[in-house]
Amino acid sequence: MEQKSSKLLEKLRGLRREHKGLINLMPLQTGGMLTDAAREALAEFGDGYSVCDFCEGSLCNVTNPPIRDFVQELLPQFLGCEVATITHGAREAKFMVMHSLAKPGDSILVDGNRHYTTVVAAERVGLNIMEVPNSGHPEFQIDVDEYTAVIKQHAPKLILLTYPDGNYGNLPDARRLGEIAHEYSIPYIINGAYAVGRMPVSMDELGADFIIGSGHKSMASAGPAGVLGMKKKWEESVLRKSGKYSKKEIELLGCTIRGVPLITLMASFPYVRERVQHWDEQVSKAQWFSAELEKLGFVQLGENPHRHDLLHFDAPVLYEISKRVREKGYFLYKELKERGIWGPQPGLARSFKLSTFAADRQQLGFVIDSFKAILNKYS
Amino acid sequence: MEQKSSKLLEKLRGLRREHKGLINLMPLQTGGMLTDAAREALAEFGDGYSVCDFCEGSLCNVTNPPIRDFVQELLPQFLGCEVATITHGAREAKFMVMHSLAKPGDSILVDGNRHYTTVVAAERVGLNIMEVPNSGHPEFQIDVDEYTAVIKQHAPKLILLTYPDGNYGNLPDARRLGEIAHEYSIPYIINGAYAVGRMPVSMDELGADFIIGSGHKSMASAGPAGVLGMKKKWEESVLRKSGKYSKKEIELLGCTIRGVPLITLMASFPYVRERVQHWDEQVSKAQWFSAELEKLGFVQLGENPHRHDLLHFDAPVLYEISKRVREKGYFLYKELKERGIWGPQPGLARSFKLSTFAADRQQLGFVIDSFKAILNKYS
Repeated sequence: MEQKSSKLLEKLRGLRREHKGLINLMPLQTGGMLTDAAREALAEFGDGYSVCDFCEGSLCNVTNPPIRDFVQELLPQFLGCEVATITHGAREAKFMVMHSLAKPGDSILVDGNRHYTTVVAAERVGLNIMEVPNSGHPEFQIDVDEYTAVIKQHAPKLILLTYPDGNYGNLPDARRLGEIAHEYSIPYIINGAYAVGRMPVSMDELGADFIIGSGHKSMASAGPAGVLGMKKKWEESVLRKSGKYSKKEIELLGCTIRGVPLITLMASFPYVRERVQHWDEQVSKAQWFSAELEKLGFVQLGENPHRHDLLHFDAPVLYEISKRVREKGYFLYKELKERGIWGPQPGLARSFKLSTFAADRQQLGFVIDSFKAILNKYS
Repeated sequence: MEQKSSKLLEKLRGLRREHKGLINLMPLQTGGMLTDAAREALAEFGDGYSVCDFCEGSLCNVTNPPIRDFVQELLPQFLGCEVATITHGAREAKFMVMHSLAKPGDSILVDGNRHYTTVVAAERVGLNIMEVPNSGHPEFQIDVDEYTAVIKQHAPKLILLTYPDGNYGNLPDARRLGEIAHEYSIPYIINGAYAVGRMPVSMDELGADFIIGSGHKSMASAGPAGVLGMKKKWEESVLRKSGKYSKKEIELLGCTIRGVPLITLMASFPYVRERVQHWDEQVSKAQWFSAELEKLGFVQLGENPHRHDLLHFDAPVLYEISKRVREKGYFLYKELKERGIWGPQPGLARSFKLSTFAADRQQLGFVIDSFKAILNKYS
């Protein structure tokens, strides 16, 4: 027992990240890499509860550090919403909204490309989940007009659209769905975990009631951190106060990220606000990269031409190799890592996702050359 | 608009903590100050989603970094429980348990010294909250035998004890309440946010069903981070899996702290595990400090002699001063800060809380002398 514990404790000493410093193409991570400002903030506010030095009862009202200005002024402007708050992340924001506006047994209508946490959040509330299917291989598109028939037939309490989805990086017609939501008076949630902080997106312009973003996924923040924007009319429901503690919001359990991730989110925000203005360059970089990989025999799934940095490829040529090498699907991870590249989930070779968001064209050129070299090596 | 934004954005640059480097007596913070190992881990794992490099479907099952060993082996041993998991913090753990084991309209019985988040978590679930009152001024003790009558009359679904509470640092007879819980077969939650990581505490020895700890409050971790331990028999309820995603726990929404606070919790753990063995020294240090402040005319509330580093004082002498100085209650904060001491909530002088956990005897001697000097200055 004691000996086993000692061994396990030893593993906790000097924790290191194997992938630090590599060219990072991992979709979960490319939008969450910290800015230098956020790195400084990490060191400054690392200690537990260090954001609470001057708390007067509510995290989002703290003025030093300037959380209140960030949440009440900058975020609503950035999200195109009337009221914003801080959450532990996108999934927790989805749960908050669902838990506030629907009851067990109610229904929610979502897109077939939704993240798994949309389903789990709905399960936690006890909702029936209905889905508008995607168009299938190879584009997996969501036609938002298909929401209409289901709304007419089942009168769901909420609708949700994943914009873009995390599997294919597709951007469905969120604005059209806003019109539909308005027509049928159904609260409309946009899960923008891969949009907010990467590309310009405005809840108001899309006609949604809620917009959700992820700090660690797309806002150059440490995790866990999320943002939730909404129309003013939902504030009373979703941000309802405790009956006993008038400053405490029930769905936030008083305060959410009472720690350093919030500070990294804030420290990176000026940069993030600026970077979304350069989204066109991100899109053309992704399209160029995708076209180059297609020349190697890979097939890009999802919308083509693509409008997001998140790319999903079928790679039959790599799959053929994986069948005959000792490492099976891991050979791709290993070969890329040896070349200083980190991206596809270890073990996957037949089909994998990459994000071009954090790498520049020179690095991506090196990635393309590396894929070529790997194919040559095993041909 | 643009000019206002620019000003607000400017505030986000170079965020600094005013209290860094001061002698820290703030109860929320003294147990959450990072170890050097945790500081290194912060820098290494700061980027968003960096704990997820080798995810195979669930945060608590990640083997690199060794989260699985930490959660499945080290934590249960440390907490004296059979099954453990990671949460965003103590309040989120309370909500998880309540949400899993009780339904809207059910009742929960808690101690009158409970943290406000116990109430808010119960409100979020829709529970009726019943309280066993404390004994009032000056000791505010909870007599756990008073749970019995309420249990007999109202048959609550859950009982909860705050051990110790955050207002007075009282340690009620948790073991006796374990016997009562057992006798009436009611699931028993210990909120040990100020115990786990500071002092030895074992769920099993106290006869509880759940034990909750806070990383940022008492485990030398960045926030948000919490731990939840339970008896094996509750795993199926509280850690129930999604119907659609067999690896995903519904109450955790799949994964909780997918970021650097978990890594700081792990990096500090060997040190935290060791420090709880020196709890006797902490208690005698707190008692000595309290006795010295009582000599100055302050009145220590809560159990006396005290058995925890969290101390609450009535300070009529300081209150008298605050009534006649320009800064009102803020004079105390200002005077202490000028002397390099941070502790009482800014604005409070009549009654305030301090924790002796992070300061050594020499520093505390300086604090005592500082209080003397402040009293002299205004006498």
